[in-house]
Amino acid sequence: MSAAKRQKTSKDGVPYELIYWPGIPGRGEHIRLALEEGGATYTDTAQPGQGGADPVLSMIGESNLGDDANPPYLAPPMLRHGDLVLSQTPNILLYLAPRLGLAGDPEDEDAIYRLNALALTALMTATTPIAVGLYYEDQKDESLRRTRDYVTNRLPKYLGYFEKVLKGKASGEGPWLYGGRLTYADLVLFHCVDGLKFMFPKAMKGMEKEHKGVFELYEAVKARPKIKEYLASDRRQPYSQGIYRHYDELDITE
Amino acid sequence: MSAAKRQKTSKDGVPYELIYWPGIPGRGEHIRLALEEGGATYTDTAQPGQGGADPVLSMIGESNLGDDANPPYLAPPMLRHGDLVLSQTPNILLYLAPRLGLAGDPEDEDAIYRLNALALTALMTATTPIAVGLYYEDQKDESLRRTRDYVTNRLPKYLGYFEKVLKGKASGEGPWLYGGRLTYADLVLFHCVDGLKFMFPKAMKGMEKEHKGVFELYEAVKARPKIKEYLASDRRQPYSQGIYRHYDELDITE
Repeated sequence: MSAAKRQKTSKDGVPYELIYWPGIPGRGEHIRLALEEGGATYTDTAQPGQGGADPVLSMIGESNLGDDANPPYLAPPMLRHGDLVLSQTPNILLYLAPRLGLAGDPEDEDAIYRLNALALTALMTATTPIAVGLYYEDQKDESLRRTRDYVTNRLPKYLGYFEKVLKGKASGEGPWLYGGRLTYADLVLFHCVDGLKFMFPKAMKGMEKEHKGVFELYEAVKARPKIKEYLASDRRQPYSQGIYRHYDELDITE
Repeated sequence: MSAAKRQKTSKDGVPYELIYWPGIPGRGEHIRLALEEGGATYTDTAQPGQGGADPVLSMIGESNLGDDANPPYLAPPMLRHGDLVLSQTPNILLYLAPRLGLAGDPEDEDAIYRLNALALTALMTATTPIAVGLYYEDQKDESLRRTRDYVTNRLPKYLGYFEKVLKGKASGEGPWLYGGRLTYADLVLFHCVDGLKFMFPKAMKGMEKEHKGVFELYEAVKARPKIKEYLASDRRQPYSQGIYRHYDELDITE
């Protein structure tokens, strides 16, 4: 048995460590939702007493070159599981989902690739009012122009796509995207919709009638007992100045 | 044995079918480079006599809801392999790489997640002068502002990151990103650098001195016999109005 295989075995029962900024749901939220729905034991650097932003800063700092097996990474979220360190949201989910029972039918070895495609596409729906540099205040006109393009072109395109997925046969029965059961792709879409509802409440309200399936999926995830308990807990980070930001003047419908 | 397992077996020896726009390298190029380096048998809708844009348009059309097992997809590239249809560039590569010997040490079952993180990060380097709507001509000022931000902030950040990866121990010996051997992550970074060299030749020239490792990797991929043969062939699509576009007035260094 190779060293890699031994390492895998030694990770059974090892808790997951999420390394992410405190104070925003951000991309880290996708990882949290999977860990929570999967009932995993995990730590989260966003929680009080976990060092604040320091664990993230130390991982992405100039002098951190990774270790013998793990390259350095550019940005959080990161997940440590035993000796393995991972970055990139869809990649962390790809690793976690089969371990947490969120990757569809375990007999269907191609399911993970279809779910990964759905998750990557859902993540494309994220948008930011910040085009260049750091400050929204320096680019208000540009932000308004981008937001107008987003809510009139990109948002209906993305939601229309997921509505099509839900109408397709591969989605199976029930409110889910693939194979008639809850998968991590549903959790990803849930948080993307949740973030967009925070960011653009008016535009998202206007999307409900034409995208009933997407909003039913959203409500179905929200009603899952573990998700419901999590969303009401202190473990959920508040929306703030992360990917999803709310500005009243960008809450437009056209 | 499950239906899914039988399906897998039946795909052995089945040629890969790349479904992508003709006339640009685009995101499809990442798939082509893996197929070429891996010596795979494949068809490519970008080649003459393959129907032009029609195969792509039919896959992403309003009425295409996928099939019993495959959801509909939003955008190319797509890959068909037997009954399996995939979308999303990093996802297609994730599927192909282990089959083409481009996923590192086959004994190291965690390698694919580290490579996927590197590939996803490399793909983040892509930029476009087109912020909103279709036409560059309608957004010249905004494009210049975005490009200035890109070449002075994001470009050095991204290249600096990959330089760090190459300095880290996990990269191993030689010019490669991970484990001392060529992987698909190297091919992805190669095409990203190639596209950026086309788009911003002056800014990329200015990066060479501080990022020697990245440019050595670029040359090492370019010199691989199969890649060299491919790049000189008709199978390589020319740069045009795709992700990587060249405008003289955006060829700036600061």
